Amino acid sequence: MTEAPRFLHPIKAPAAHAGLAVTFDAPLPLDCGRRMSPFTVAYTTYGTLAPDAGNAILICHALTMDQFVASDNPVTGKPGWWIDMVGPGKPIDTDRFFVICANVLGGCMGSTGPSDTNPDTGKPYGLDFPVVTIRDMVRAQKRLIDHLGIRRLLAVVGGSVGGMQALQWAATYPDHVKAVVPIACAARHSAQNIAFHEVGRQAIMADPDWRGGEYQQHGVRPTKGLAVARMAAHITYVSEAALQRKFGRNLQNREAKSFRFAPDFQIESYLHHQGASFVDRFDANSYLYITRAVDYFDLAEEHGGQLSEVFRLNAPRFCIISFSSDWLYPPVENKRIAHALNAVAARVSFVEIKSDKGHDAFLLDEPEMYAVIRGFLNHAAGAP
Amino acid sequence: MTEAPRFLHPIKAPAAHAGLAVTFDAPLPLDCGRRMSPFTVAYTTYGTLAPDAGNAILICHALTMDQFVASDNPVTGKPGWWIDMVGPGKPIDTDRFFVICANVLGGCMGSTGPSDTNPDTGKPYGLDFPVVTIRDMVRAQKRLIDHLGIRRLLAVVGGSVGGMQALQWAATYPDHVKAVVPIACAARHSAQNIAFHEVGRQAIMADPDWRGGEYQQHGVRPTKGLAVARMAAHITYVSEAALQRKFGRNLQNREAKSFRFAPDFQIESYLHHQGASFVDRFDANSYLYITRAVDYFDLAEEHGGQLSEVFRLNAPRFCIISFSSDWLYPPVENKRIAHALNAVAARVSFVEIKSDKGHDAFLLDEPEMYAVIRGFLNHAAGAP
Repeated sequence: MTEAPRFLHPIKAPAAHAGLAVTFDAPLPLDCGRRMSPFTVAYTTYGTLAPDAGNAILICHALTMDQFVASDNPVTGKPGWWIDMVGPGKPIDTDRFFVICANVLGGCMGSTGPSDTNPDTGKPYGLDFPVVTIRDMVRAQKRLIDHLGIRRLLAVVGGSVGGMQALQWAATYPDHVKAVVPIACAARHSAQNIAFHEVGRQAIMADPDWRGGEYQQHGVRPTKGLAVARMAAHITYVSEAALQRKFGRNLQNREAKSFRFAPDFQIESYLHHQGASFVDRFDANSYLYITRAVDYFDLAEEHGGQLSEVFRLNAPRFCIISFSSDWLYPPVENKRIAHALNAVAARVSFVEIKSDKGHDAFLLDEPEMYAVIRGFLNHAAGAP
Repeated sequence: MTEAPRFLHPIKAPAAHAGLAVTFDAPLPLDCGRRMSPFTVAYTTYGTLAPDAGNAILICHALTMDQFVASDNPVTGKPGWWIDMVGPGKPIDTDRFFVICANVLGGCMGSTGPSDTNPDTGKPYGLDFPVVTIRDMVRAQKRLIDHLGIRRLLAVVGGSVGGMQALQWAATYPDHVKAVVPIACAARHSAQNIAFHEVGRQAIMADPDWRGGEYQQHGVRPTKGLAVARMAAHITYVSEAALQRKFGRNLQNREAKSFRFAPDFQIESYLHHQGASFVDRFDANSYLYITRAVDYFDLAEEHGGQLSEVFRLNAPRFCIISFSSDWLYPPVENKRIAHALNAVAARVSFVEIKSDKGHDAFLLDEPEMYAVIRGFLNHAAGAP
């Protein structure tokens, strides 16, 4: 096990930092049957770990996010992706809680992923990287938590694919987490969800610069395919109503239609921007691997489809949050989780927040979400 | 004006035929300001035109459909796309009505489109083809109707983009159509609709075999990009519930997940099939042009956004049909049209059919739709 030199424990994070990383030599068993060794988990922390290590909150990031939840992202230079949620005095209050956020296994922000060197070949993994699952990601996070000397997390919080990781924590390590907050997620990926992911993957793999996944060796990147994948995905993150309100049929910097194929409409320029900025910060193979992990996610699968069975033993406290206009993981999917927990008499609260912002509402200014999470965490911290 | 040799008028269509075509030399003025000459309209007819030419029904096809509405498609060898709707004794009864269906301008099934020779250069049009609009398509259809000796159509019927053409007929030629049946459509393309189209176009244009639209000269075709475009679009044609019911998370020809990127799930194989079969029958540039025409569609635009103004003068009878699970052109968009017609006291009936099949329901077995259309057309035929 190798630690990044700047690692201190317990740590008081500076206002912005480049993140930490720890490398584990002991093999990580994966759902595919393979074992990974060594593997690195890149992460950030905020706040101070209490002497009894009882104030630790793990935040799990979404599909293409990263560990820079509340500090500047060193790649984009932009502020953390949840700075209104995490920080001193914020709903997840770093004056009170020790917050950890780790880049997922398979990612491209420091945790081991397909762009890293395969120790067996000395070349980048590419498609030799094992297809990992949400559970594998959570297993890697558990190693980090052990390493940090935390036996039981106060809470695991996450939105979207981060919410799936929170659910997986409750399923796999119920004795090591007191409370979970899954936001805007589902206990399984639906056929439509898989379909959108497959479109994105096909767009990447159709790009000749993908080179069968070995683009790094060729000094190229499948940016066109990755941009198309991002554009398609982005539509699913936003509600129809929000797109109409924000863009409607407004033209971009012109008085009349051009009768050409360059972007005429604001919505087109917006999508192009989403695609272009994404390829500057994200690795195409990581996109393949993480979307695949999400497609494979179906918590109830090993219990004959009975979701309640997943949580029968020692379920942590749940606070499930959904957004009314989220059509990627609609409220009914979030409710399914609450119903399953009710069926085993687990402690669960469920909130459906009225919002027209769609799936991405969990990343946006949603005062009701802030209030719910602040209240729930304060209560969980004080509970036995 | 040149007629295809097999053209007979009035015509009793054989059970299956390869279609007809007529070429017009008189220039067609287009919304972009250009004029097209010559241009060809490829079409089929079914049934017999009455001596007073009062029994003619024009069917307008959707985005990637064609004129083979009720006869075998010579490219795919498959039956017509609406054989349960159009034929002897069917809701649109060819024992009684003379049915016409024309390939849209910009298409790739015989009507002039980007794959045809540009008379100015002697090479395929490619991107030199003018960006046409739904109104341009309808103008070309009007030429055909004039040519067939029909002063006033009994009805114009169409689903999806065909429904937009029906609406455009009512707006542009109200004196030449007695009744219109727009199905599963909208009076304008929404921001989300444009976004999905732009993703498809970007997928095509990202394919290096697109060659700036000049792939024909290079003997290649952007099949990978076109397949991705089709896959993304196809998701919008089906409801989430129908995908879940039909495919769910079922695996394709395997007992367990492969932990690879080949299709594991039935929904993935299904999408691949949709993409692969589409590229065998459709031209990539036609896809660009027709999607652009639809993006540009906004009937109320020239009336300051007041849709009712479009229909103020001499509106035909309307029968508007929508499907409850259509999320591409949801019932609320269809209802907007009905409300606009109500506001000018036009004769309109509106039906929302309960179905979980999504947008494509109009192409599927929907007994209520058949009954509504049969009744409406019978009534319209007898009305003054």
